[in-house]
Amino acid sequence: MSKIASTFSRLVRFVPRSNPSKILIGEPVDPQIDVGLALFQGKEVSVWPFSGLSVLNPGQKTTVTETIERVLSPLAQNEVGSIRCIGLNYASHANEMSLPIPEFPTLFLKPSTSLADPWPAPTVLPKITQVDNTGDYESEMAIVIGRDAKDVSEENAMDYVLGYTAANDVSSRTCQMNQSQWCFSKGFDTACPIGPAIVSASLFSDATKFTIRGLKNGRVLQDCPLTDLIFSVPKLVSFLSQGTTLPAGTIILTGTPPGVGAAKNPKEFLKAGDEFAVELLPYVGTLVNKIENQ
Amino acid sequence: MSKIASTFSRLVRFVPRSNPSKILIGEPVDPQIDVGLALFQGKEVSVWPFSGLSVLNPGQKTTVTETIERVLSPLAQNEVGSIRCIGLNYASHANEMSLPIPEFPTLFLKPSTSLADPWPAPTVLPKITQVDNTGDYESEMAIVIGRDAKDVSEENAMDYVLGYTAANDVSSRTCQMNQSQWCFSKGFDTACPIGPAIVSASLFSDATKFTIRGLKNGRVLQDCPLTDLIFSVPKLVSFLSQGTTLPAGTIILTGTPPGVGAAKNPKEFLKAGDEFAVELLPYVGTLVNKIENQ
Repeated sequence: MSKIASTFSRLVRFVPRSNPSKILIGEPVDPQIDVGLALFQGKEVSVWPFSGLSVLNPGQKTTVTETIERVLSPLAQNEVGSIRCIGLNYASHANEMSLPIPEFPTLFLKPSTSLADPWPAPTVLPKITQVDNTGDYESEMAIVIGRDAKDVSEENAMDYVLGYTAANDVSSRTCQMNQSQWCFSKGFDTACPIGPAIVSASLFSDATKFTIRGLKNGRVLQDCPLTDLIFSVPKLVSFLSQGTTLPAGTIILTGTPPGVGAAKNPKEFLKAGDEFAVELLPYVGTLVNKIENQ
Repeated sequence: MSKIASTFSRLVRFVPRSNPSKILIGEPVDPQIDVGLALFQGKEVSVWPFSGLSVLNPGQKTTVTETIERVLSPLAQNEVGSIRCIGLNYASHANEMSLPIPEFPTLFLKPSTSLADPWPAPTVLPKITQVDNTGDYESEMAIVIGRDAKDVSEENAMDYVLGYTAANDVSSRTCQMNQSQWCFSKGFDTACPIGPAIVSASLFSDATKFTIRGLKNGRVLQDCPLTDLIFSVPKLVSFLSQGTTLPAGTIILTGTPPGVGAAKNPKEFLKAGDEFAVELLPYVGTLVNKIENQ
C-alpha cells in the first residue's frame, strides 16, 4: 500500500451557475481563495471542473472554468456512511470542561442524515433544542478516508487518508448533558455541516499545521492550533479501524478546541439569526451557516 | 397517513438454490416454519418469491416456489443506514445491572458495516475483543421503519413501522465498560446480525406479544416477554424521530432483557466455537450465528 495519489490539491462540490440542475466537483482557479468566505461575501468563485462526480473518484481536471452558484458539502450524504466523531481530543478543551485527559479516543456516531451543506444551507435547531435554547457549536477538523480501511496500523494509517475538511459538530446540550447521551443530541438533521473544500493529504499531510477558529457573528470564540490534539490523525484512523471497516468516504470529526458556548461564563448558545463560521486554515477555508429554528 | 399496507405477512431475503448468484425476497410457504432453526438443522425451506428485490418495496407474490440455499439479513447494509440502538429498555435488565429505570430512551448507533447475515455467516470477535475475551450477546427485537419518519407523534408512530425482526447486539464489554463507550464497543464488523425473517406489523402489530429468548449452545440464558419493555415501540419511533429523519429501512434495536453474559455470576462471555441463537416468537423465528475469532 502507498499514499493515495491525488489528482487534485483541493476540491469543492458545487452547483454551477451555467446549469443549476447539475452537481460538479472541481478545483478553485485561485489556489489561495477561501471559497466559503468569498461566496458568503457575494464574490464570484471560478472552478476548474474535474471529469469525475465524486471527490472519491475525481478523475482529471478539465479545461473550461465554471462559476459556483452554490457550494455543497464535499461529500454527499450517500457517500459518508455513519459519521465518526471523537468526544474529547484537545488538551485545552478537556481542561476547560474540567475533564481528565482521556487515555483512548471516545467515539460516537452521527447518522448520515445529519450531513449538511455550507451557506446558504442553514443549521436548523429542532423544536426539542428550542425548549431551553441550548444549541451549541463545535468547530472541528474532519479527516476524509479515501480507501476502505480495517485493522490499519498507525504507521500505515496515512495511506488511507484522502484529505481534510472543516465541520461543525452542532450539539443540543440539554439532551447531551441531562440525558448523558451524545448520539441523539448531536444527530439531528443539519447537525453536521462540512466544507467548504477538501484539501488533499498529498498537498498538506501534517494536520497539526492547521489552525482552527470558530466565529459567531464575526466574533472569535474558538482559536487553537492543531498541535493541541491529544490523539493524532494516524492514531485515530488506526484505533477506529480495529475490527471495523471504515469504508472510503468515511469522515472522522476530530474533536473541538476550547471555547464552546456551554463552557462560556455566561453560557453562549446559538439562536435563530446567528451566523456561525468554522475556519480551518490553510487551504480548507471557512464553513459558514446561519442558524434557523425548525 | 395510514398504516403501511403490506403485501406480505413475513419475508426472508435469500440466495435460492436454483441460482446461487441471485438474491431474492419471498414468503415461506409454511406459515409456521422457523426459517432460521429449520436451515440450521439442515431442513429444506420453500419460499414464494416476490416480484420486488427489497422488503421496502416487495411487490407481489409470484407463483413458482424456490428453495433457500442461504438466508440473508432481511435488509442489506446499503438499506439500513446508521443502526439505532436503545441502551436500557427492560425493567428486569435495569434491575440486573443495578441501574435505575431510565426516564427517556438512551440512543447509540452502530455503523451499517456491522450488519450481518444469519448462519452460516459468523459472528467474528475482533482481536481487540480477544485480548481479555469479553465478547457478549444481547438478544433484541428490532423495529423496521417502512417510510421516512420525522417529528412523528406517538399516536401516529405505527404508520411508519413496516415490521419486526430479531437482532444480536454483539458487544465487547471491556471497551464498553472500561472506556465508557458504546459506539466503538458495539460497532465492529458482524456485531449486528439480524433475521431470519421480518414479520409485517399489519400481521402482528402489538410487539408486547412477542417473547424473546437467547440461547448459547442450546442453553437458555435470556427469556423474557416484551411486556417488560420500558419504552414502547410507538414511544421509541416518536422520540428518535424528533428533529431527525429516520429514512425507510432504518432499524431500531430495542434493548436486551436480563441474562447477558456480563451480568452472570460467574460471567459467561462468548468464545470461538459457541453458537448463539436469538429466538423471537411468534413468526420471526431463530437468528443463529456461530462465534469465530478474527
